[in-house]
Amino acid sequence: MRNIDEDTITPAVLAAMAKCGNERLLTVMSSLVRHLHAFARDVRLTEEEWHQAIGFLTDVGHITDDRRQEFVLLSDVLGLSMLVTTQNNRKPAACTEATVLGPFFVNGSPGYENGDDLSNGARGRPCFVSGRVRGLHGEPVADAEIEVWQSDEDGFYDVQYTDADPAHQARGRLHTLPDGRFHFRSILPEAYPIPHDGPVGRMLDALGRHPWRPAHLHFWIKAPGYEPLITHLFRNEDQYLDSDAVFGVRSSLVVDWVEHPAGMAPDGTAMPSAFHTLDYEFVLNPAGQGQ
Amino acid sequence: MRNIDEDTITPAVLAAMAKCGNERLLTVMSSLVRHLHAFARDVRLTEEEWHQAIGFLTDVGHITDDRRQEFVLLSDVLGLSMLVTTQNNRKPAACTEATVLGPFFVNGSPGYENGDDLSNGARGRPCFVSGRVRGLHGEPVADAEIEVWQSDEDGFYDVQYTDADPAHQARGRLHTLPDGRFHFRSILPEAYPIPHDGPVGRMLDALGRHPWRPAHLHFWIKAPGYEPLITHLFRNEDQYLDSDAVFGVRSSLVVDWVEHPAGMAPDGTAMPSAFHTLDYEFVLNPAGQGQ
Repeated sequence: MRNIDEDTITPAVLAAMAKCGNERLLTVMSSLVRHLHAFARDVRLTEEEWHQAIGFLTDVGHITDDRRQEFVLLSDVLGLSMLVTTQNNRKPAACTEATVLGPFFVNGSPGYENGDDLSNGARGRPCFVSGRVRGLHGEPVADAEIEVWQSDEDGFYDVQYTDADPAHQARGRLHTLPDGRFHFRSILPEAYPIPHDGPVGRMLDALGRHPWRPAHLHFWIKAPGYEPLITHLFRNEDQYLDSDAVFGVRSSLVVDWVEHPAGMAPDGTAMPSAFHTLDYEFVLNPAGQGQ
Repeated sequence: MRNIDEDTITPAVLAAMAKCGNERLLTVMSSLVRHLHAFARDVRLTEEEWHQAIGFLTDVGHITDDRRQEFVLLSDVLGLSMLVTTQNNRKPAACTEATVLGPFFVNGSPGYENGDDLSNGARGRPCFVSGRVRGLHGEPVADAEIEVWQSDEDGFYDVQYTDADPAHQARGRLHTLPDGRFHFRSILPEAYPIPHDGPVGRMLDALGRHPWRPAHLHFWIKAPGYEPLITHLFRNEDQYLDSDAVFGVRSSLVVDWVEHPAGMAPDGTAMPSAFHTLDYEFVLNPAGQGQ
């Protein structure tokens, strides 16, 4: 420890952790130190680049608050979020695939009944969403909690408006009926850029990357006896399906949203203007069956 | 890009950067993504651990301000700072070795003349520091700028006091004389814990690590025609020399600080109480001679 140089630094840091009483923390931090040092060695990171990195992380920290999570954005655009999601959600091929949570989920969204309109004042083209939740072996899953959230026609989530009133728009929770089915009204989600007026946006610019995500509706489905499922459904025709800024697209989650003239929704209620429908079957993995 | 999974995510992120016009940025970010993903795969990082990491980085960002740089602390305790320092300061063995800048350097410290007292009100045992700056081939380096900063007897730097008056204590700049020599008065630096009341302190706790640094005096020496030198001199008897929290110790920088009874300083001025002396020869590497 008195002769630290570029060769001895890594074992010195690992040795300093030897008294850690938390075995998992020791495993994670030891690997982090090895990879962090390997990165700095591989590129022979300069002192000026190190200063830039410190400044970048400081900016990411300072723009982050209760409504904006720039570290999640950073993890998302570097593909770390999707990697963590996929490696923790291995399941049989017949199950609905998971994708990233994203930075726009918030706790405490309003509860709704089947048939309600979740848009709650958010602007957009009307949309009727229906579906079914079943288990891997075909059984309907009754009373599953379904939480949805989405962007409006301008590509913004409610939390991106400082003056949203009511506070929760185009997000909410409802439950499946005894046959596992559910349905609600909302608005058609649109493609949107992730918040790109901060350090992550500047990083994407410098890397020659755009900030857009293809249009999608977020789902978080929970039911006793099954693994929770966090996923999106994407609109099939979207121009950004092949270049999602956060790498969240999976082919099985790209679905057709069907356009209809004004008339009647599938539940028999009136639709006074043109609208889209979406119908999807979610297949949950039984709890404890993960691979 | 429509079939992102744990195997395809890394090449997908690398492919997304293909249009980056900055070759060095592309090199650095490609390596960062590879190592970040390799880390997450190696430990099979869980979603809960990912959430903890996001929360930790958010805390690091929020405690960082103009007076406290928790990201630098984090880099320091993970050994990244020392690695970057050493790999960018390869030089002939006869040159004085570099070590970490640390989080307590500030711009705009006061200028002093040789013989002045840099403590400027900071509390501590008196100390007389002298030395010489020379080049690799023995030549004295005249008019080199020497910037020093250090802790007080309680182990705190001026910037850690919110009410420090005057603002700059135990730090300052002076220049070498025509023969390359310099001397000033200050106080004896003491061992201190890095700021550990924040997220980095909690991380050290969880890892079973202490936050202490052995006592040292910081030097930043600049002279035209030579590589700048950022280094410390450590007190030989310090109990933390073998467990520096930021891995900054190098044997060549551990030196004797000699204790004297009250009397006369080496420059002939009176020392009314017991004091220490330190004398050291700094050897600078000619600019453009780095290995």
